[in-house]
Amino acid sequence: MKVGIIGATGYTGQELVRLLQQHPEIELAYLGSSSHSGAAYEEMFPQFSGIGAGQLQNEQVPDLDVLFCALPHGLTAGRTAEWLNRGIKVIDLGADFRLKDAAVYEAWYKTEHPAQELLPEAVYGLPELYRDRLVGKTLVANPGCYPTATILALAPLLGKGLLQKDGLIIDAKSGVSGAGRSATLGNHFSEVNENFKAYGVASHRHTPEIEQQLSEAAGAELFVNFTPHLVPMIRGILATIYAEVTPGVTEEDLKACWHERYESEEFVHVLPEGTWPQTKFATGSNHVFLQLKVDPRTGRAILVSALDNVVKGASGQAIQNMNLVCGLPESMGLKMRGLWP
Amino acid sequence: MKVGIIGATGYTGQELVRLLQQHPEIELAYLGSSSHSGAAYEEMFPQFSGIGAGQLQNEQVPDLDVLFCALPHGLTAGRTAEWLNRGIKVIDLGADFRLKDAAVYEAWYKTEHPAQELLPEAVYGLPELYRDRLVGKTLVANPGCYPTATILALAPLLGKGLLQKDGLIIDAKSGVSGAGRSATLGNHFSEVNENFKAYGVASHRHTPEIEQQLSEAAGAELFVNFTPHLVPMIRGILATIYAEVTPGVTEEDLKACWHERYESEEFVHVLPEGTWPQTKFATGSNHVFLQLKVDPRTGRAILVSALDNVVKGASGQAIQNMNLVCGLPESMGLKMRGLWP
Amino acid sequence: MKVGIIGATGYTGQELVRLLQQHPEIELAYLGSSSHSGAAYEEMFPQFSGIGAGQLQNEQVPDLDVLFCALPHGLTAGRTAEWLNRGIKVIDLGADFRLKDAAVYEAWYKTEHPAQELLPEAVYGLPELYRDRLVGKTLVANPGCYPTATILALAPLLGKGLLQKDGLIIDAKSGVSGAGRSATLGNHFSEVNENFKAYGVASHRHTPEIEQQLSEAAGAELFVNFTPHLVPMIRGILATIYAEVTPGVTEEDLKACWHERYESEEFVHVLPEGTWPQTKFATGSNHVFLQLKVDPRTGRAILVSALDNVVKGASGQAIQNMNLVCGLPESMGLKMRGLWP
Amino acid sequence: MKVGIIGATGYTGQELVRLLQQHPEIELAYLGSSSHSGAAYEEMFPQFSGIGAGQLQNEQVPDLDVLFCALPHGLTAGRTAEWLNRGIKVIDLGADFRLKDAAVYEAWYKTEHPAQELLPEAVYGLPELYRDRLVGKTLVANPGCYPTATILALAPLLGKGLLQKDGLIIDAKSGVSGAGRSATLGNHFSEVNENFKAYGVASHRHTPEIEQQLSEAAGAELFVNFTPHLVPMIRGILATIYAEVTPGVTEEDLKACWHERYESEEFVHVLPEGTWPQTKFATGSNHVFLQLKVDPRTGRAILVSALDNVVKGASGQAIQNMNLVCGLPESMGLKMRGLWP
Repeated sequence: MKVGIIGATGYTGQELVRLLQQHPEIELAYLGSSSHSGAAYEEMFPQFSGIGAGQLQNEQVPDLDVLFCALPHGLTAGRTAEWLNRGIKVIDLGADFRLKDAAVYEAWYKTEHPAQELLPEAVYGLPELYRDRLVGKTLVANPGCYPTATILALAPLLGKGLLQKDGLIIDAKSGVSGAGRSATLGNHFSEVNENFKAYGVASHRHTPEIEQQLSEAAGAELFVNFTPHLVPMIRGILATIYAEVTPGVTEEDLKACWHERYESEEFVHVLPEGTWPQTKFATGSNHVFLQLKVDPRTGRAILVSALDNVVKGASGQAIQNMNLVCGLPESMGLKMRGLWP
Repeated sequence: MKVGIIGATGYTGQELVRLLQQHPEIELAYLGSSSHSGAAYEEMFPQFSGIGAGQLQNEQVPDLDVLFCALPHGLTAGRTAEWLNRGIKVIDLGADFRLKDAAVYEAWYKTEHPAQELLPEAVYGLPELYRDRLVGKTLVANPGCYPTATILALAPLLGKGLLQKDGLIIDAKSGVSGAGRSATLGNHFSEVNENFKAYGVASHRHTPEIEQQLSEAAGAELFVNFTPHLVPMIRGILATIYAEVTPGVTEEDLKACWHERYESEEFVHVLPEGTWPQTKFATGSNHVFLQLKVDPRTGRAILVSALDNVVKGASGQAIQNMNLVCGLPESMGLKMRGLWP
Repeated sequence: MKVGIIGATGYTGQELVRLLQQHPEIELAYLGSSSHSGAAYEEMFPQFSGIGAGQLQNEQVPDLDVLFCALPHGLTAGRTAEWLNRGIKVIDLGADFRLKDAAVYEAWYKTEHPAQELLPEAVYGLPELYRDRLVGKTLVANPGCYPTATILALAPLLGKGLLQKDGLIIDAKSGVSGAGRSATLGNHFSEVNENFKAYGVASHRHTPEIEQQLSEAAGAELFVNFTPHLVPMIRGILATIYAEVTPGVTEEDLKACWHERYESEEFVHVLPEGTWPQTKFATGSNHVFLQLKVDPRTGRAILVSALDNVVKGASGQAIQNMNLVCGLPESMGLKMRGLWP
Repeated sequence: MKVGIIGATGYTGQELVRLLQQHPEIELAYLGSSSHSGAAYEEMFPQFSGIGAGQLQNEQVPDLDVLFCALPHGLTAGRTAEWLNRGIKVIDLGADFRLKDAAVYEAWYKTEHPAQELLPEAVYGLPELYRDRLVGKTLVANPGCYPTATILALAPLLGKGLLQKDGLIIDAKSGVSGAGRSATLGNHFSEVNENFKAYGVASHRHTPEIEQQLSEAAGAELFVNFTPHLVPMIRGILATIYAEVTPGVTEEDLKACWHERYESEEFVHVLPEGTWPQTKFATGSNHVFLQLKVDPRTGRAILVSALDNVVKGASGQAIQNMNLVCGLPESMGLKMRGLWP
């Protein structure tokens, strides 16, 4: 199976290469980059010395079975129809096909949607929840990292009516890699290390994506408070979620729902009593870790979810989606576990 | 003024030495340690080479003007009455005199209170809020680090009725130094770095301390959700607080209250519009940084507070309290600003 | 092939599990631990949730094809003969079988050698240099992390007489994981982060191991200055090596020797001109990166080598050795590349 | 005393502000910046909230007693004569006045020297070695960070002939702040954290500065191997130095020389036997820590030196120089000790 990546020099691009170079069923046939066309990939990224990656190509995409778009929003959506017409399955790691409503996109991304005619056929690629929708599809909107962590924790519980749809607070924390590879003062080591801050308070673009999927799960429109924070680490997202429990529902009910929903999932783990998620459980792997507690003093549930933003929050999930749309075993090439220590 | 420290080898003890060795009005007359008595302090802690600290003494406290107790809860409270009787002012950095109700102490600390007869005369040492109570007192309960960050943000707003007392959620994040100097698997570098986790979910001992002071501010008993997290950094606390705004109250009202309350405070800074607190603003200093926003989509206020847990959250605030109870200028010896980068 | 690990809870033990759980030809049949026997492995190490690891066993080793000993020196050597007699191949990640001369062992490890009768049959397991000696053997002494980095850089050049045997200086830097999982003040996050130091100056136990192998390569006894340092990171070793060049030898000669020696090696990479090794190139992988330069002003060669101390410096190399002694393809199960970012 | 800073937004500029704002004898009268003129300093750097710093000025320097130039090489040297003529003492933290030989400057900095006529009157500002030369002078070349660490360790020993001038190897390690505040891929958190590398191998510009001062100390021209490395930490330099001992000289002789030379120095500490320097001993302070050992197996001395590159390696030393040239007590405003933890 011939696979390509456009945007192969960014962090999600590099991570796709890391995972795909040991995937048993694919050939890495195209590595595209607008700015580094012609450069030897392994010289630019010596961790890949000897894999036979060849040179970076320009943005003329050759014939492929699957193309991963690992570029920021707005850059490839306009070309997606052409690729689909050529029979290339497209898995977009950017934001352009995640929001079903182009007006919502435009309100949060402050730009006209570049290809809204494709929105109906794009599938939101969260396999654990929407596996059935993905099989045989050709355009996958790979979820954002924060939404993946949040939705996996909340959607089953909202779907069963165990949590109230109002009053959801998502206090999320991410490693620095989430902001990408471009150098800015905000990701300068000397500004980030030994430092912690909130950012995008009440304005982060993952908010409508979370709300869209949770509203679908709850069967009614809902709004959330979503506050991301920057952790002085490279990889990892941890979401701490506060929710009002539906009257009569217990901690055991919530856990039972999670267990039932996820017991046959290879990548989602409800941790044993007393063990709380740590982002390092997930580092370098496609796995997600969950725990919750109901605080008897306030009656509120506290849910915690952890994953690797570059793997399950981006490139690993994209490969999981590729496996699904191509009829391969869903976890093929994704067997590696978290790097500890 | 002769000053001593019992527990001089822990992190708050070392920080007291760091700050006191350049305080113009004190003589560091006693450094006590149960386990390292006889050791040369500067050999044990070479950062202090040449300050003339001499040897660590045993726990027999000599005559002093002020004694800082920098030991975990339960270890010195039983001896406090004796020290007070000898005319020594006591500033306790542990937890024993913070909670006014010994039964609450016993419920959270799982041990009998060692000196409940002293509770009435102990003053909760948060100078910005209780300065008047501190002047001339002899027993100060130095606040916890998380409570300092939380109470400074919330107390003025609750006191004016601008926030509702129910539904307060405090999602707090701390550097590793907060857990002290004892080596455990939980603070092993290889377990902490590149990792992030919640801990003490719905069970952390700072919860009743926060509730006690916020209930006093609000004029009615309240309960909070308090979730601490461990950040892979040494120093710093950032609290992200979610609160229901009283109907009719605006973001501007909340900010105006903060500005009015803190404009003459040397150590508390309400940041300008658009600037959010970062823990590094405070590193090594006694300063606190605040910002807030009301999310128009949910009507909830998001408040963020940042400080250095070892300084304003412990040893710096203790010196601020010493200055106050001894009639010295409150910021004496505390002029240094945050270490950046 | 049934494989077991004694010392499965330490960092090298966990890393063996991480790598072996996705090795296609082995069954992880035994996880032994003296102190945690009976504990559920996946509850203790949640990164492995769902791999089916079962419980930790005691130290009674069952019948196996291969046993990895992942314990500190002195603890398992005395039992090794028994395991070998039972037909179990033994790969020892500790130090007991690395030094050929028991007297040298005793001088540096300050203890009697626990099984010197086995020293003649133990093979020093550095596959790139001693592959031929390893095939078909049953007792492998897996090299130390610093020696692996050092010997791979120097042995070919000394073997060809391109460097002088006197005056070798090895200034090495390691991440904290090299010191293992036991919590000490020395690996406390608050003591290590934002800190850098030398340790074991002129006294580190890897010195005689390096000297033994380099002396063999040079064909004459030699001594080195070896200074390890602690880097505030978890994984990675970088060795900066200073050597006197044999008169008449050029930088190109040195590089040509490396290229010739390593061009067919899958795990060793001589980097292109101008690219210097970074430890992160190797993180989580079994790969080694090399570069050198001759300083024309002093005539001295500066060689730099980087690897992941837990993989190529320990558990990955151990699996490479297992593959070799068991007749499997040498890189089986070791395909993953460095985690970047 | 009116003091100003040109280049007040860089890291050494900010550090000058941090230290000067609590210096008892100066008024911070001018903060200059080419790119941020007009910005409110405390809004840009909230750690300084409330110090009364006012706005950043343009590069028109007003009348001052002392001007600190905290800009990269080449930018202010051309204007220095004018400032000196106006009676302003100039302390240049850049490289322009450090090398006495303009040809050497041009060879290493690849640019014509901007003001070589001033070289004769510039004094190399390492107070512990050249205090007498500094008193009363008006142009100080503040040393580089690596040279300060290296020269303080070696100069006294070379001066007494205890070490041989040939064969000096300086393997140095620095935190990321040494590279300044400009954002580059090379100081991106995700590229630096959990990573370690050498850089500028056999080509770093501090090499001739080290050689100039050591040659002076040794009384004969010498060359060194100098290899800097990047440590994933913000502040700190540690230099590990290898030197051939003069025949007949012992470890005790070397230590005695250091002790004699530095016993009355407030900022230089020869550590007790068995204690090796750690960069954190110095963090945020103007202090330097030394230790050495002669390896009896090779006869070579290993010397280790540690300091904070932003303080003793830049801004703190600059203030020490200011105090000296202005007749103030040399340590005024520099009393703070290392931040630990």
